[in-house]
Amino acid sequence: MKVIEKRVTIVGGGLVGCIWAVFLAKRGYHIDVYERRGDMRAASYTGGRSINLAMSTRGWNALEKAGISEQLRSVAIPMPGRIMHSTQGELTHQPYGKDGQAIYSVSRGGLNKALLELADGFENVTFHFHEKCVALDDSTCDLVFEHELTKQKTSVQSDLVFATDGAYSAIRNTLQRQPRFNYSQQYLDYGYKELTIPATANGEYAMDANGLHIWPRGKFMMIALPNPDCSFTCTLFMPFDGDNSFASLQTEQDLTSFFEQYYADTIPLMPDYTTEYFSNPTPALVTVKCHPWSFKSKVLLLGDAAHAIVPFYGQGMNCGFEDCTILDSLIDEHNEDWDSIIAHFDDTRYKDSDAVAELALRNFIEMRDLVGDPLFLLRQKITAYLHQQYPTEFLPLYTQVTFSFIPYHKALAEGIAQDRLFEQIFAIPDVAADWTTEAVHTTFKKWLQEKEVK
Amino acid sequence: MKVIEKRVTIVGGGLVGCIWAVFLAKRGYHIDVYERRGDMRAASYTGGRSINLAMSTRGWNALEKAGISEQLRSVAIPMPGRIMHSTQGELTHQPYGKDGQAIYSVSRGGLNKALLELADGFENVTFHFHEKCVALDDSTCDLVFEHELTKQKTSVQSDLVFATDGAYSAIRNTLQRQPRFNYSQQYLDYGYKELTIPATANGEYAMDANGLHIWPRGKFMMIALPNPDCSFTCTLFMPFDGDNSFASLQTEQDLTSFFEQYYADTIPLMPDYTTEYFSNPTPALVTVKCHPWSFKSKVLLLGDAAHAIVPFYGQGMNCGFEDCTILDSLIDEHNEDWDSIIAHFDDTRYKDSDAVAELALRNFIEMRDLVGDPLFLLRQKITAYLHQQYPTEFLPLYTQVTFSFIPYHKALAEGIAQDRLFEQIFAIPDVAADWTTEAVHTTFKKWLQEKEVK
Repeated sequence: MKVIEKRVTIVGGGLVGCIWAVFLAKRGYHIDVYERRGDMRAASYTGGRSINLAMSTRGWNALEKAGISEQLRSVAIPMPGRIMHSTQGELTHQPYGKDGQAIYSVSRGGLNKALLELADGFENVTFHFHEKCVALDDSTCDLVFEHELTKQKTSVQSDLVFATDGAYSAIRNTLQRQPRFNYSQQYLDYGYKELTIPATANGEYAMDANGLHIWPRGKFMMIALPNPDCSFTCTLFMPFDGDNSFASLQTEQDLTSFFEQYYADTIPLMPDYTTEYFSNPTPALVTVKCHPWSFKSKVLLLGDAAHAIVPFYGQGMNCGFEDCTILDSLIDEHNEDWDSIIAHFDDTRYKDSDAVAELALRNFIEMRDLVGDPLFLLRQKITAYLHQQYPTEFLPLYTQVTFSFIPYHKALAEGIAQDRLFEQIFAIPDVAADWTTEAVHTTFKKWLQEKEVK
Repeated sequence: MKVIEKRVTIVGGGLVGCIWAVFLAKRGYHIDVYERRGDMRAASYTGGRSINLAMSTRGWNALEKAGISEQLRSVAIPMPGRIMHSTQGELTHQPYGKDGQAIYSVSRGGLNKALLELADGFENVTFHFHEKCVALDDSTCDLVFEHELTKQKTSVQSDLVFATDGAYSAIRNTLQRQPRFNYSQQYLDYGYKELTIPATANGEYAMDANGLHIWPRGKFMMIALPNPDCSFTCTLFMPFDGDNSFASLQTEQDLTSFFEQYYADTIPLMPDYTTEYFSNPTPALVTVKCHPWSFKSKVLLLGDAAHAIVPFYGQGMNCGFEDCTILDSLIDEHNEDWDSIIAHFDDTRYKDSDAVAELALRNFIEMRDLVGDPLFLLRQKITAYLHQQYPTEFLPLYTQVTFSFIPYHKALAEGIAQDRLFEQIFAIPDVAADWTTEAVHTTFKKWLQEKEVK
């Protein structure tokens, strides 16, 4: 292996930090990874505030390049579609894509441990745990870390610094004081609560494990993703305030009435939901955007540190992993000239992270509200029909985002164009009864032509 | 005077901090003002990065309530209109309002000193200089200050904390880490440079002092405001990068050619412009928004700390001062119940600060680009005519913002409605030749009716 003299520091040993360490390690860089928490291989993983991850095509691609996809496929649970629960407990299945296409339920802790183990296996990668980044020198880009236990401070010089320290990034917080650093953090008025559907007494799944379960209820919703131990991790999303909110459910009686009314079919499956509800935290949901992501061609923000999004399209980790595959390909494209690599990435990638942030917010409305709506279901049927009739000209938005490498900003633009198409299609008389008519095809072809002109 | 037992801490002794201290002092509160810098009455004021202030109705109103308006009227210079300079040096005058209406050129340093002196005159107000706020305890709301020179730390308990520490507020930076705190800082790609037109050898103004001078040049512009010493403070606004930018003017030769081409009439008036250009800093222009402004009903952000805006509508200080008059009136309205006062202010005022941020960005385009545009000049003439014909039904946007107490968010909505009106008026054939026709009146009345229905 070629040995590269550049000293690389990665701040944050989470998912993106670990996989990026693997990418660089394979290229022969010397890498030090500083992580604020302890070694998660030693500590037991703490749940209670982690929505399960949904791995899709962009994420798998990064894992393949890192050489770890096979190992993870065995513990990832395929979810080929949504399984909707009505208030009466009736189920409706909606496939996410074509036969064989699925998103995969993955535990954040399990994936992080596997990636950490893989990265740590390279002799040119060194992990430093309990090290909190407390300063970034804005002339030299030297970093100062403070050890959580000994309080000892260490100054670290590097040629390149990658900040993968998450949505509440310390490095980004420092850069925020630089002139011309654009930054925003916007919270939804919603929080979430993790609950559990355990395995049955027989050690089996209490519901169908081949899908992502959704209880859409308009202004609030619950979802559940399967785990390998036959439990489901459920997440209840609700407004903080108002009717049917975290503020309105104060007592066990409030909660029981609420569940009886909206989630009756889950009560027999969740023996501990009241205990969990009142003991688990209620995290908020934030979208973070900033620009530029780089500082002095030496420091680069990646993953959630650069662009944190709400979880409703299941793309947060997938987008962070795609940062790594794109950046890795730029290393070759720019022949290891890091000034050019960083400038190229900084000038282009934010369009995609802005787009996926928007897509994630739009999908929240779809999940909590529309998936139960007849017009939405009709749109899905017509979408499937059009995709079958025009396989290359018409790709469903969900497929573009989840099962392709189409840049997110192009997918969002196509999604907006498809909204226009469906406005026109829904104006066709009796289209709900038959969407295979000449009128539908004419409308589609006209839309396609106009789109190509643009 | 009634003595109130509440201990009030004001963080930041700038314009808003000082005037708010006066408001509270008059009500009998005990106030400590902590200021990061030294006492500006001792230090000489440092220029080079301060656009002169344009005091208008909302600002004067606060000064009147604080009892300091008379003293300041004598040093404020009325600017009843814009004076536009073409590249050929031709002048065009555009009045800002009606006869007798003007905005006033005021020196930031002079005004700050006057307000500080006034506040310090109250025996229930104590100033502490060189005190930097380094911590806010998020359970008790106690503050920690560090003395700039002695490095001694002081912990301060208070019943109420007002953060008036400006666009780069330390208190706001702490609150940013609280869950559900929405925050954004967005920079224009423009910077500015302060230059000077000194008094003539005879000690007179080198240009007409009765106006705000503008050299609109499309993508960049210069402005000049008169000072009492017969100089003008000029501000050159330009993009940081690209053609005709701070990046493109690197040498004295670049600068001279640029001035000869675009600002030829100012060259004889600005003997030191090259020296000033290359020695003065190039600050950036930021818009800051956040919400909520309050924390635990005990800490409240005010002025630029809550809502920093770009300077193009001359409303930054006026808006901060209006924060104080509004908050002061809420003290009576809620009978000194500070929980209610703060909640009321926090729930309502941000609509106005968001609107004035938008107005300021829109006015940048107007100033640098449109004031030289024939259609814009026509719109101004028709605006004046409509206002004269329909004095209560049609108030020019500039008048609403500058010479009234109409809430900014209502002014912005009216401005957007007026844009619609002028689209319709400009579609009337030959309207440029005669805008007093029946067609114009019919269009106006229809617009008015539609607006009232909404």
